[in-house]
Amino acid sequence: MKSKFNTVAICASSKGKKINQIANQCCEVLLNQNIKVYLNEGLSEVATVNKAKVVNDSTLKKSDLIIVIGGDGSILGFARQYGYLGIPLLGINLGNLGFLADIAPDNITTSLTDIMSGKFIRDKRFFLEASINSSKKTDIALNEIVIHSGAVAQLIEYELFVDEKFVYRQRADGLIVNSPTGSTAYSLSGGGPIIHPEVKAITVLPMFPHSLSTSPFLVKDQSLIQIKMIGKKNKATLSLDSHHSISLKKGDMISIKKTSSNLTLIHPKGHNFFSACRNKLGWSSNLI
Amino acid sequence: MKSKFNTVAICASSKGKKINQIANQCCEVLLNQNIKVYLNEGLSEVATVNKAKVVNDSTLKKSDLIIVIGGDGSILGFARQYGYLGIPLLGINLGNLGFLADIAPDNITTSLTDIMSGKFIRDKRFFLEASINSSKKTDIALNEIVIHSGAVAQLIEYELFVDEKFVYRQRADGLIVNSPTGSTAYSLSGGGPIIHPEVKAITVLPMFPHSLSTSPFLVKDQSLIQIKMIGKKNKATLSLDSHHSISLKKGDMISIKKTSSNLTLIHPKGHNFFSACRNKLGWSSNLI
Amino acid sequence: MKSKFNTVAICASSKGKKINQIANQCCEVLLNQNIKVYLNEGLSEVATVNKAKVVNDSTLKKSDLIIVIGGDGSILGFARQYGYLGIPLLGINLGNLGFLADIAPDNITTSLTDIMSGKFIRDKRFFLEASINSSKKTDIALNEIVIHSGAVAQLIEYELFVDEKFVYRQRADGLIVNSPTGSTAYSLSGGGPIIHPEVKAITVLPMFPHSLSTSPFLVKDQSLIQIKMIGKKNKATLSLDSHHSISLKKGDMISIKKTSSNLTLIHPKGHNFFSACRNKLGWSSNLI
Amino acid sequence: MKSKFNTVAICASSKGKKINQIANQCCEVLLNQNIKVYLNEGLSEVATVNKAKVVNDSTLKKSDLIIVIGGDGSILGFARQYGYLGIPLLGINLGNLGFLADIAPDNITTSLTDIMSGKFIRDKRFFLEASINSSKKTDIALNEIVIHSGAVAQLIEYELFVDEKFVYRQRADGLIVNSPTGSTAYSLSGGGPIIHPEVKAITVLPMFPHSLSTSPFLVKDQSLIQIKMIGKKNKATLSLDSHHSISLKKGDMISIKKTSSNLTLIHPKGHNFFSACRNKLGWSSNLI
Repeated sequence: MKSKFNTVAICASSKGKKINQIANQCCEVLLNQNIKVYLNEGLSEVATVNKAKVVNDSTLKKSDLIIVIGGDGSILGFARQYGYLGIPLLGINLGNLGFLADIAPDNITTSLTDIMSGKFIRDKRFFLEASINSSKKTDIALNEIVIHSGAVAQLIEYELFVDEKFVYRQRADGLIVNSPTGSTAYSLSGGGPIIHPEVKAITVLPMFPHSLSTSPFLVKDQSLIQIKMIGKKNKATLSLDSHHSISLKKGDMISIKKTSSNLTLIHPKGHNFFSACRNKLGWSSNLI
Repeated sequence: MKSKFNTVAICASSKGKKINQIANQCCEVLLNQNIKVYLNEGLSEVATVNKAKVVNDSTLKKSDLIIVIGGDGSILGFARQYGYLGIPLLGINLGNLGFLADIAPDNITTSLTDIMSGKFIRDKRFFLEASINSSKKTDIALNEIVIHSGAVAQLIEYELFVDEKFVYRQRADGLIVNSPTGSTAYSLSGGGPIIHPEVKAITVLPMFPHSLSTSPFLVKDQSLIQIKMIGKKNKATLSLDSHHSISLKKGDMISIKKTSSNLTLIHPKGHNFFSACRNKLGWSSNLI
Repeated sequence: MKSKFNTVAICASSKGKKINQIANQCCEVLLNQNIKVYLNEGLSEVATVNKAKVVNDSTLKKSDLIIVIGGDGSILGFARQYGYLGIPLLGINLGNLGFLADIAPDNITTSLTDIMSGKFIRDKRFFLEASINSSKKTDIALNEIVIHSGAVAQLIEYELFVDEKFVYRQRADGLIVNSPTGSTAYSLSGGGPIIHPEVKAITVLPMFPHSLSTSPFLVKDQSLIQIKMIGKKNKATLSLDSHHSISLKKGDMISIKKTSSNLTLIHPKGHNFFSACRNKLGWSSNLI
Repeated sequence: MKSKFNTVAICASSKGKKINQIANQCCEVLLNQNIKVYLNEGLSEVATVNKAKVVNDSTLKKSDLIIVIGGDGSILGFARQYGYLGIPLLGINLGNLGFLADIAPDNITTSLTDIMSGKFIRDKRFFLEASINSSKKTDIALNEIVIHSGAVAQLIEYELFVDEKFVYRQRADGLIVNSPTGSTAYSLSGGGPIIHPEVKAITVLPMFPHSLSTSPFLVKDQSLIQIKMIGKKNKATLSLDSHHSISLKKGDMISIKKTSSNLTLIHPKGHNFFSACRNKLGWSSNLI
């Protein structure tokens, strides 16, 4: 049977012997099935031992699938860069099972062979997009967008609107707006709820709010969330997946909504969100 | 213009002069528009001063709309009894603006006239349904289903499954499974997130869990949530909207899912979930 | 050197081969040092193999030290019964290191020998005492006193006073008043802070409060905490260490204060509260 | 009767007509009792209308009492500067009743006259002192000391020790160490418990910890709390009462303990911590 994926890229965001070894193993499995294999620049050593080819960014974008060797953090980066363009990602976790990277190094041959023959699950995740009225800047996040004073115990003051309806005016250290994907990342440390990836919702979570009466709340994924920066102090920062920051000033209106483009994660059959919760969050797996 | 509602019932779950006066006012508005008006038995005094008719339960079920005079608690009862059958409900709050009852007594004439002429918003809410394998018992809740030991600091032990996938095994005082409608009720006291009514999700919230590592989590509204009662102590109770209780025993498997029938709430145009949050939860309305 | 303890009782609240074996080992160590050894009735089998004597409750009360074989729950019971009278307790944990029982079965000989020769730490814990004005009933708790409606999502309503000063009027499922010892027990599941045993404070923690604006709070250990039961519903229960319950009625005033008598726990030198936290609560012990 | 305070300074940290008017009123009451009155530089206009004298910092330090006109924030500043030297502070709140400033402008004459005649309560609060091993820098805080990465969602990594015992190794956005005075300030926004000023304890509260298993915890006020900065990222900041910051680097060991010097706050008789809680935190005052 012909694979669903004619051209597969193997990528890693860091370097190391173990990563090279896993990349090699992936190459073998893929090449055995006559799949064309690309490598990102970090994996140049791997190209010396097999027929895979190191390619640049614009060639990488022509892949049908990108295999990321690393943890959830690595996937996050490749998701923003390539996943956003519509290229599916498959994660091989280096350490423990992650929320995004769920193929263990031990299972590479079996898992990859199955996936190449069409036995896989597509898991769609949406991105959030923030745009700022004053600067015309727009950027995306897979996990969360955070607006923050950038300093300890320095309050920002803002008015929050959802679908052009006023929600509240608040003083807080900051505000987190996160997708279900981000619900197991930074939001969780701040007391936010865990959201199953299939729930179509966006979480709004104040950070160290000045008022005791505010809880995290969820709105539907198609909502437009707007934050108007008010107050005398005008220093604030917008952070996207903790990767990228934009400075904000007084009067800025930040608009956050889900993007039309989705990330597609490829999982082996049997993939289970709750397994990752048990593994990563210490939920009890003591099933009799 | 002909009203959308030919027969309207006015109901209250408690008695009093103010309730009678509001019911009278509703009667006048409706009768002026040649709408047939029913009253539930609690409002028999109202029938003496106008052409509205006190009817029994089976006749009430033939109404096109039920106006409930009372607070969110009153609506909850009528929702379980009549709303579940498909009859829309409209709430006139006696005290403060509620999450479900949102017409203020001051606005009755205007609001009712508008609504009867077709100017209204339909707000669909789903019910949750619990069934227990051993007893074949099934019952519904609009807000939440709670499984609890029924005693202070007495743990129950259970295994949780979502869509037939194992989630965790846990010891806790109890477990709350709630709809978005219930997110501003009991769940909120237990630290659960607020869910906008349009979000299609169900919240699972452990009560006083023995482990620190469990957070509230949300799954999509079509999920099947199953709780298997294990552990040596077998005393536990299932409670539906704090109205109705069912005893559980060791080995019971409780299945919870949303019902196919929805509640339809009728709101005046301009209805806004966040207004109710500001009013009921003390969110700051200080908008400049 | 002469032991500090002339007569030592060995006690267990449950039965089993492992418990008997540990009790035997304790007997040997103690008898070798010419210490008189008592056993509680649960350990009668142990008396057949050595010179220790099964005694009744009133003789047990003449011990200079009670060694409890079991977990924190076992110690809790013996603390209420004997510790309250001034007899020091020493806990041998059957399973994992506990907050109260901290000698591992592997270390019995060394630890007991050291302790008998005077190498130990005294760890004083206070009890809380609840008295109810209407019934003249008084009872004690080591961990916590809970006032609760006794049913799911049934609010109780009360006024709270500290040192005869009004604190607030509140509706909640219940209220926990706990000692530092209880801070790692039930209070922790409800979001209460962990209190080091040396802190002289009492925690007040509402359970599922109707208002979002209430946090747990701490007052000094010599404060008098009073709860006046108000509201129409009069069903409520006072629970002490989840061991003992007293029914409350409307208008009851419950007074809670620390007792003049303390529990003395005996620990091996090197005992450390934070080790128990790491072990029991999953705090990271990854010290480089 | 002779006042307890021979020389009283009146201070404000901001300027305005209302402040001047209150300062004037204070001057009159004090001068009528033949008390020597100093003014800080911000109140120079007040000196033109009565016999009070604007003095510099070193003369201010010779006052027997400092009256601060402002909110809790103003008191905080004067507490760090003068209260730390042993000069008692009395706060006249400009807006609402505060936790530290509790004389309402309406009651100035009565309250001041009473206080000058000896009818007052002394309320001792301790300061926290942070010292850093590498830099030999030391500074104080009345509310809290915060160690923070200084950026959104950037973890710091540290080992925590209490009284030279290892507590845990943790990754978090930061860590708050606060006094009971600080428990109603920043710590409260982060979910910390409220501590009555008479409780002799220090709170340790992680901010957005990476692990779900960490709760806030309290140790006795005489404990030495030490934080060792580890991890690859070395950027972190130590903040004192959000007034003053010190940069930290990898390997720094921060030692925090209470100072030997206390702040003395002067309150009118009848002062009540819980009144301030009700007023500032929205606790229900609905006492029948």
